[in-house]
Amino acid sequence: MHFFSDNATPVSPSVFAAMQAADREDHGYDGDAWTARLDSAFSDLFETPVSALWVATGTAANSIALACLCPPYGAIIAHEEAHIAVDECGAPGFFTHGAGLMTLPGEGAKLTPDVVSARLKTIRADIHQSPARAISITNATEYGLVYTPAEVAALGIVARDHGLGFHMDGARFANAIAHLGCAPADMTWRAGIDALTFGCVKNGGMAGEALLFFGPGHAARAAEAARWRKRSGHLLSKGRFLAAQILAMIEDGLWLDNARAANAAARSLADGASGRLLHPVEANEVFLRLSPQEAAGLRAQGFDFYDWGEGAARIVTNWSQDAACVAPLARALNALAHG
Amino acid sequence: MHFFSDNATPVSPSVFAAMQAADREDHGYDGDAWTARLDSAFSDLFETPVSALWVATGTAANSIALACLCPPYGAIIAHEEAHIAVDECGAPGFFTHGAGLMTLPGEGAKLTPDVVSARLKTIRADIHQSPARAISITNATEYGLVYTPAEVAALGIVARDHGLGFHMDGARFANAIAHLGCAPADMTWRAGIDALTFGCVKNGGMAGEALLFFGPGHAARAAEAARWRKRSGHLLSKGRFLAAQILAMIEDGLWLDNARAANAAARSLADGASGRLLHPVEANEVFLRLSPQEAAGLRAQGFDFYDWGEGAARIVTNWSQDAACVAPLARALNALAHG
Amino acid sequence: MHFFSDNATPVSPSVFAAMQAADREDHGYDGDAWTARLDSAFSDLFETPVSALWVATGTAANSIALACLCPPYGAIIAHEEAHIAVDECGAPGFFTHGAGLMTLPGEGAKLTPDVVSARLKTIRADIHQSPARAISITNATEYGLVYTPAEVAALGIVARDHGLGFHMDGARFANAIAHLGCAPADMTWRAGIDALTFGCVKNGGMAGEALLFFGPGHAARAAEAARWRKRSGHLLSKGRFLAAQILAMIEDGLWLDNARAANAAARSLADGASGRLLHPVEANEVFLRLSPQEAAGLRAQGFDFYDWGEGAARIVTNWSQDAACVAPLARALNALAHG
Amino acid sequence: MHFFSDNATPVSPSVFAAMQAADREDHGYDGDAWTARLDSAFSDLFETPVSALWVATGTAANSIALACLCPPYGAIIAHEEAHIAVDECGAPGFFTHGAGLMTLPGEGAKLTPDVVSARLKTIRADIHQSPARAISITNATEYGLVYTPAEVAALGIVARDHGLGFHMDGARFANAIAHLGCAPADMTWRAGIDALTFGCVKNGGMAGEALLFFGPGHAARAAEAARWRKRSGHLLSKGRFLAAQILAMIEDGLWLDNARAANAAARSLADGASGRLLHPVEANEVFLRLSPQEAAGLRAQGFDFYDWGEGAARIVTNWSQDAACVAPLARALNALAHG
Repeated sequence: MHFFSDNATPVSPSVFAAMQAADREDHGYDGDAWTARLDSAFSDLFETPVSALWVATGTAANSIALACLCPPYGAIIAHEEAHIAVDECGAPGFFTHGAGLMTLPGEGAKLTPDVVSARLKTIRADIHQSPARAISITNATEYGLVYTPAEVAALGIVARDHGLGFHMDGARFANAIAHLGCAPADMTWRAGIDALTFGCVKNGGMAGEALLFFGPGHAARAAEAARWRKRSGHLLSKGRFLAAQILAMIEDGLWLDNARAANAAARSLADGASGRLLHPVEANEVFLRLSPQEAAGLRAQGFDFYDWGEGAARIVTNWSQDAACVAPLARALNALAHG
Repeated sequence: MHFFSDNATPVSPSVFAAMQAADREDHGYDGDAWTARLDSAFSDLFETPVSALWVATGTAANSIALACLCPPYGAIIAHEEAHIAVDECGAPGFFTHGAGLMTLPGEGAKLTPDVVSARLKTIRADIHQSPARAISITNATEYGLVYTPAEVAALGIVARDHGLGFHMDGARFANAIAHLGCAPADMTWRAGIDALTFGCVKNGGMAGEALLFFGPGHAARAAEAARWRKRSGHLLSKGRFLAAQILAMIEDGLWLDNARAANAAARSLADGASGRLLHPVEANEVFLRLSPQEAAGLRAQGFDFYDWGEGAARIVTNWSQDAACVAPLARALNALAHG
Repeated sequence: MHFFSDNATPVSPSVFAAMQAADREDHGYDGDAWTARLDSAFSDLFETPVSALWVATGTAANSIALACLCPPYGAIIAHEEAHIAVDECGAPGFFTHGAGLMTLPGEGAKLTPDVVSARLKTIRADIHQSPARAISITNATEYGLVYTPAEVAALGIVARDHGLGFHMDGARFANAIAHLGCAPADMTWRAGIDALTFGCVKNGGMAGEALLFFGPGHAARAAEAARWRKRSGHLLSKGRFLAAQILAMIEDGLWLDNARAANAAARSLADGASGRLLHPVEANEVFLRLSPQEAAGLRAQGFDFYDWGEGAARIVTNWSQDAACVAPLARALNALAHG
Repeated sequence: MHFFSDNATPVSPSVFAAMQAADREDHGYDGDAWTARLDSAFSDLFETPVSALWVATGTAANSIALACLCPPYGAIIAHEEAHIAVDECGAPGFFTHGAGLMTLPGEGAKLTPDVVSARLKTIRADIHQSPARAISITNATEYGLVYTPAEVAALGIVARDHGLGFHMDGARFANAIAHLGCAPADMTWRAGIDALTFGCVKNGGMAGEALLFFGPGHAARAAEAARWRKRSGHLLSKGRFLAAQILAMIEDGLWLDNARAANAAARSLADGASGRLLHPVEANEVFLRLSPQEAAGLRAQGFDFYDWGEGAARIVTNWSQDAACVAPLARALNALAHG
């Protein structure tokens, strides 16, 4: 049983069915009937007018968002372990034409207003220093923690006060919302978010992520983003298949159902591994202390996962699992704990 | 009946079936079993060791290829109506970090050795001028003509003599090969091609094109291309679905079957429209003189297509058609001609 | 006697004297007393509020101007023999992050409204094509012709009607104004010019060109340009020496005196070479038919210049010459003509 | 008396004289007699074949060097307070087309092999992470400390072992060498340095810095650097004036004479301020604790300098000073200390 990543799982059956339903001639690129529904579907979900674009990957969505929020001479504030900082091979630098990442520390891969504000104070206002122009946070974070709407809003105030664009990498946005049960609006535009990478692939999609823009100017930003999408080779000619995947996710609540299953599976593993956890388990990732011997023992039982540095491991659950499904691993972890 | 573009057609059934077969957990990104087969499958097809990468669009494949062949200060020779010059919103400039396109005229969107050589002579060897570093041709061309292996090889000699990389945009490579019946090898590396965009989407795929590198250094170039793929957000996490599409195309000859059908359909329309043709019909595109009244008449009969400037139209056939299928339009064209 | 280029001439004595006068401690970068005078000095000269920045080269001035006028996905309309197109090794592509040059033909390296308008009509308004966003012209042109204010204004109307920024590369702006005797304002902002590269180096400077912004928003554009200047390494720490050079040029009319001398020298050569001229001689460049034997003969007499293709030559005069000074060459040309 | 920066001082008289001597017609760009002497002059100074290019600023030299050492998808290791990281408004990101800076802490703005090696260990070798490709250090550092040849060599071994290019920002290289009295070769290529920004402007030049390449492949790297120089607008047409400045610096030992004077002045101030120093004073910068009241008191006596955060100040001496010249400030500092 694989717990490497939610990245490589199968496609949720109704997503696949939606692609089959879209398998008929329509206008190319983003001129089709499915794409035409995206804005309104997301506007409903977020209770505000939204401009939405599909792209094939989260890296593309993140990078295009940042290119719209930060000029080439600016800097983007992000956590030092953010996906955009450590796992995208410099894609934000490519799309922004060289804007720098200003990375900051923080428990559980979370940024805090204090740390951000303190860093902002160190930037001189002269021409020699890159001005910060955007903040990007990941929710759920790279360590499986969830920012609350209040935490996001506190950062949103810092962003607003300093004239910074505010982006959320929501590769696991569904898991965050499923954990809190709050309104997507509360987590995003009401808290100051300008652009959201709304992840679907980790949550049962095949290849479609949505990039959403909120607030005044959202349509103009989306128009600019559409230029970047084309220019970066991300305007698929049969884009209806991406739109169909995304609609299948959000129109009937599949995105939350899937995220709840993955979260429950992680919760169950966390219960089995109490005392070993490196971070609270709030979404679908479990980081725990695990000796090489223990890891080898689990692998010998057929459980696969990544080591996370020395003496630790990362276990990721996904939409196709639930608590029952991962019970064998939960028991194995529990047995270790008492072994 | 739509004849807008082969770009927006449904997916070939066996391609869809291949995606379903790939719908199980495997390693993410390009670590899966399908991707692992790409190099050897293409090496078989091209009778030489090939390095192959999947990407989601032809624009991405073209741009990554050019980024590998041309430095930022160099120039890329292309036809003035090449897709890379007029339909990619500057993507080659983005991926190459600013390399220029040196566009040249030519009948039927074909470059010729004479025109290329004459242009090369005008470039001074000093530091003030961008040196040409690559040639890119499209086969079949944007006007539906097919370069023969001899024509490609003649350009290949120019490229070699001037130290230029040589790229072929094969968005409709299958249609070109189906037209000539020659070996893919003869059309490409034996004629000096270093990098090929092997198109699948127009030919029945959903979202996967292959970027192939040939010749000495192909593996090193592919390794560099893999960096650009990641950095441009084109490394899909469930890349196996792209690999599976491409394998379904090439492992059992589907690519040629589909292209033959589309070509036959175009041939049939060309026969119906003899006397009106603006270009010989060699692949799956028909460019013909058509008055506004005639165009309106055809549209009234349910045939849709794009105008091509004033008094002309472009009709594109696709894999899902054949001569029988397009017979109504062939008859309608024929009726016009004699009307 | 050298007639290679006005590019490599000595420095005008009063420019050198101004640098010596600036050779005392002041604030670094652009914080000094000389730089502080630039805006008002140019505002006086151009009879309108102007924002001015010094840079070390014309290529930098041109490229920074274009980066402010054209987004990375846009295109810049220029003559196919413009300096930015053929002699800057792709600098505009570098500074604009990949914007393309849309080059057009025209007699004497001049763009005309008809040719520009016709090209603009061919650009579809969709996302696949790079939209034109700027026009750049050179005055005096690369062939030594001078656009009149009316000619510039006619292009300015095209620019305004299509929402294009309008840039003038004035590497030899002084020669153009000296030729016409018109107001600098008439040639620039009154004719729709948004940004001007005001050349000094060819006209007797050592290393300073001015980049000027006109019209509504000029200060905001200059502020953005200042970012590009810093980011491209063009914010010299002892910038006062550049400012001092430029002020020495414009504050006492030296720029026009020098240009008049160079123009008169060229006029004198043109008179000597009547019947051989390839272009009217309006500024300080003479293009003429010259057989290899004739060229060799002139060189044997000590006159040096560049061949210009086969059977032709380019002779450039400069500020340090005048009609008397170049009389020997004028006589030698005349002798050839009657030889 | 100003102690803001060595950046804004007058020009050393013999440098000015050299410019005057160069004020006669010669070939343009880098084709002149002065430029032709640069390689051999630096080869003599560094006891090895060197390729040298002039540019107008240190930012340009640093950025071009880094563009030659690091691909766009790579990362550059630098101190978190390095000039390239905090004072160039993202210029390295611009020239490298988006390569990231991987900044690290270290006492006195020095990198150490341990810190660098530890960071390198955290980079996975997969495609998702930007590989480190270069190290850049500043000598003397931003806090006026000097790396010894042994310290540089220890970092050079790390660079070599990991296949990293090794760049030294020598904006104050002369001050470092003057402090140690060692051979320039020992500080650079013998210690593994591939590229050096050899600063002249802070040391009495007007506008010329030299970019030097050492070791196997130095000429090829310089040829590539020449492309970047042109493309970034840094190929001045009257480049002989930059070459002349640089030659005046190095051909008769002026660079060391000037640096010794500045260092002695700083030493003298440091002696006056003993007990207040934040860093050892090894070059020409003095960082010291200074209360707002004390700072105000010094300024009231006519001494100007920058605050350095709260309760601290930076005093920079320069080539035009010496111990005698700064004695009034030394006394004033000493008086404070005992006040």
